[in-house]
Amino acid sequence: MVNKAGREIPDHVAGYGTVSPFAGAFSTLPGNICRYAPPVKVVHPGESKLADSLEDVFRRIPIRDGMTLSFHHHFRNGDRVVNRVLAVASRMGIKGLKVALSAVFPVHAPLVDHVKTGVVAALHTGYISGPVAEAASRGIFPRPVILRTHGGRAGAIETGRLTIDVAFIAAPAADDYGNINGVEGPSACGSLGYAFPDAEYARFVVAVTSHLVPYPLTPVSIPQTRVDYVVKEEEAGDPEGIVSGTTESTEDAVKLSIAKTAAEVVRAAGLIKDGFSFQAGAGGASLAAAHFIGKMMEENRATGSFLLGGITGQMVKLLEQGIFRKILDVQGFDLAAVRSIASNRDHVEIGSSCYANPFNAGCAVNRLECVLLGATEIDTDFNVNVVTGSDGVIRGGSGGHSDAAAGAGLTIVVAELVRGKFPLVVDRVGTVTTPGETVDVLVTDRGVAVNPRRSDLSDRLKGAGLPVKDIHDLERLGRQRAAAPVAFPAGGEIAAVVEYRDGTVIDVVRQARKMKSRRASRQ
Amino acid sequence: MVNKAGREIPDHVAGYGTVSPFAGAFSTLPGNICRYAPPVKVVHPGESKLADSLEDVFRRIPIRDGMTLSFHHHFRNGDRVVNRVLAVASRMGIKGLKVALSAVFPVHAPLVDHVKTGVVAALHTGYISGPVAEAASRGIFPRPVILRTHGGRAGAIETGRLTIDVAFIAAPAADDYGNINGVEGPSACGSLGYAFPDAEYARFVVAVTSHLVPYPLTPVSIPQTRVDYVVKEEEAGDPEGIVSGTTESTEDAVKLSIAKTAAEVVRAAGLIKDGFSFQAGAGGASLAAAHFIGKMMEENRATGSFLLGGITGQMVKLLEQGIFRKILDVQGFDLAAVRSIASNRDHVEIGSSCYANPFNAGCAVNRLECVLLGATEIDTDFNVNVVTGSDGVIRGGSGGHSDAAAGAGLTIVVAELVRGKFPLVVDRVGTVTTPGETVDVLVTDRGVAVNPRRSDLSDRLKGAGLPVKDIHDLERLGRQRAAAPVAFPAGGEIAAVVEYRDGTVIDVVRQARKMKSRRASRQ
Repeated sequence: MVNKAGREIPDHVAGYGTVSPFAGAFSTLPGNICRYAPPVKVVHPGESKLADSLEDVFRRIPIRDGMTLSFHHHFRNGDRVVNRVLAVASRMGIKGLKVALSAVFPVHAPLVDHVKTGVVAALHTGYISGPVAEAASRGIFPRPVILRTHGGRAGAIETGRLTIDVAFIAAPAADDYGNINGVEGPSACGSLGYAFPDAEYARFVVAVTSHLVPYPLTPVSIPQTRVDYVVKEEEAGDPEGIVSGTTESTEDAVKLSIAKTAAEVVRAAGLIKDGFSFQAGAGGASLAAAHFIGKMMEENRATGSFLLGGITGQMVKLLEQGIFRKILDVQGFDLAAVRSIASNRDHVEIGSSCYANPFNAGCAVNRLECVLLGATEIDTDFNVNVVTGSDGVIRGGSGGHSDAAAGAGLTIVVAELVRGKFPLVVDRVGTVTTPGETVDVLVTDRGVAVNPRRSDLSDRLKGAGLPVKDIHDLERLGRQRAAAPVAFPAGGEIAAVVEYRDGTVIDVVRQARKMKSRRASRQ
Repeated sequence: MVNKAGREIPDHVAGYGTVSPFAGAFSTLPGNICRYAPPVKVVHPGESKLADSLEDVFRRIPIRDGMTLSFHHHFRNGDRVVNRVLAVASRMGIKGLKVALSAVFPVHAPLVDHVKTGVVAALHTGYISGPVAEAASRGIFPRPVILRTHGGRAGAIETGRLTIDVAFIAAPAADDYGNINGVEGPSACGSLGYAFPDAEYARFVVAVTSHLVPYPLTPVSIPQTRVDYVVKEEEAGDPEGIVSGTTESTEDAVKLSIAKTAAEVVRAAGLIKDGFSFQAGAGGASLAAAHFIGKMMEENRATGSFLLGGITGQMVKLLEQGIFRKILDVQGFDLAAVRSIASNRDHVEIGSSCYANPFNAGCAVNRLECVLLGATEIDTDFNVNVVTGSDGVIRGGSGGHSDAAAGAGLTIVVAELVRGKFPLVVDRVGTVTTPGETVDVLVTDRGVAVNPRRSDLSDRLKGAGLPVKDIHDLERLGRQRAAAPVAFPAGGEIAAVVEYRDGTVIDVVRQARKMKSRRASRQ
């Protein structure tokens, strides 16, 4: 069948199940269902939650073949817990585990071997990079990898589509009764927002910490009422690994010029005024745009309401300067963000359901006036791909991309018209991640394109003297300047299923063994 | 049948259902059940939660006959929301409502008329005083009032034994998307901990506030993700009403001497040292004891870990002086507590499930080293009554009494041997609220009694020169000095069912129309 994003997807995917096709950004509702109901727990006075070791936890739960283990990715490439837990599983001879890790980084390379030896059979994640991504594209997983958005993951957990047997929570600080926060101790990583749904709905919750403090630990990010075991381990994570890849701003002149143009778009849209709220997605240009937007707010003596999402030092500065009133932080992108959330009462931790789950009484992205997002590819219908590279290999994922695009009043995609040797704007993206109906403006180094659904914006931007072009013109221009055609894998087995935030399937990724030119195929 | 507290209770109570008898403080487990699963909600970008009025909310939900409406009691006698909501229900002709109000105060007197006119048919609460208590004792409710502990209420909501259709949350401050806290605005009342389970599990949640602030409000006590409607109303509550009745300390010489003796008991038990944690229940003598305990900690240069429960300025002082490291606050008992929780990061809000629910992965009372509690009556098996007066009329309830007694390592009951004209120590309490197996020491103005289950303590207290007596001797002494015998209602209809924190029935309260002397009945 062909879904609303124009993608041909099967009715049923082996190892995934029946496919509910993407039907439009706000068309699929959960229906008359209830939240997932995990078992009720009991801990009597005098009982201890301290476990001797991860092995001890495995035996006491006990962890068995085929269970789903979940992890958060707040340490990003500095995570130390996933590999350690899976090594224990491997030593104990456990097979067929499902790993629900909110994002996968190069540090998680050992996962590839665990798949090969059968310890791990499945992966649910929101973003995937490094050796695991490449291996997933080659089809090493016996079942397709399930890619969800950050909000979609929270929703899947809350509605029981993703049930977790054991959540292992890398805890910068914990007490012996399982209260956890991310702001204390040598491994402080800031917000633990992506672990909130896991802690709330997993059958068992295990805090893994190197920083055990006297009861009661405060502030509390994850409460004692949900945590079953506390294990002391060397270093739960290395905060130096937080700043990696997509979280760094840019000094590149082209990217800076894109960022500046994006800020001009925001101004032309009439948003530089009191109450403005925005999110800058990961990626150099969008992070840099935050700086220019801040300057404009300052010049206009405007006070913004809130900054959202993955937080950087740049946003902390906007808070500290009083240019924005609040930060709602689901994830720290650098150590300045970690320090700020630990000390500034206006810098507040939120969970991923509050951040972006479409199925609750209103998530924070719904209140965004603007979001700036990156793209690997964008097509002439404004559909964005941040899952696969132009070579068809998995090297990313939505994270909060689709969520923020859906929620924000103004969604701006910022990217260079030629990325490496590949064109940005294509006739048809390799993988649809974020549907074009939720994208308003594309800002490149060679011009700006406005989604025809937003003709109101087009006039405003032209009126402000911005270089507005038809997206088809940008497509032609990019194609001419790019050194290589885009390629896509054809006919291979399904390596990954890309779920939209509402749990429908927006696209599938085929195995990247056989490639052919997409441009050729169009001819 | 006779339950483990020695009370004769029926197998079935009309208007309540099948009775699960109290079987011991830690004997009844929830079994293999799951948490209650409320319906999943959806709010799309652009949708507003603001309602024009309470009437508007009633129509939009819509609220129908027989629904359960819940309320918190953080404003205590200053609450303005319950009466207003029920007046709307009355005007709209709604009948048979169940009211789940965490505690009932004299201000809620209009409830009596709503019962008479059929608007309200049932009451679930944790504490009940004033005209509603008297009317309940007279049997005006068509079904027995259900009295739960604060922790038991949280557990009943989490496990689905108490399902809430609409939670109305008196909100000192809220934004238009339903984020709520108790620490801002002219009606700041501090912690909103008793409303946490309601907000999490109700089918609909309504914020009622007079202080609507720009989005996003922080800190967040109750999050936007659970709140469906926001209504602006004049004054959600009067903070002056918070300090009322049971929350005031004492200058009475007898009570002070009891408080001092209680502090000596704590010292003799070896608890005045680093890491000590305690709760002082409502009631003058127990609140005064906090002062003496603080002095002892200071003299010993000991640093306590945490103070728990309903919080007063006295405890705030202990935090500010560094004598205790943290306050875990489920309810503010005075305005000093309200100011402190708003500004001191070591003074932390907790929900009632975290405070005292026996059915989660460990509540805070489990970690108490000591609690000081009041009593209306205590019997020679150390069972405590705080539900009915010595005349058999309802004028209280457990609140957190049974919860803290069950959790704490050392539970001390403090009270005068003669209360008004009635004796404190009786052969058989009018209503068992807190089972004797969870009470360790009774401190009166005429001596101290130790539960025989704690012979270890008895020796320590005697060694410290404390006036330890057999509780039967205190019973005789009190009976001789009391002006009146205790009375209890016999044979009337059941006016209230007293649930223990685990949901079993520990006692029932009969209607208070026909009384006879309990002492006489024993002869």
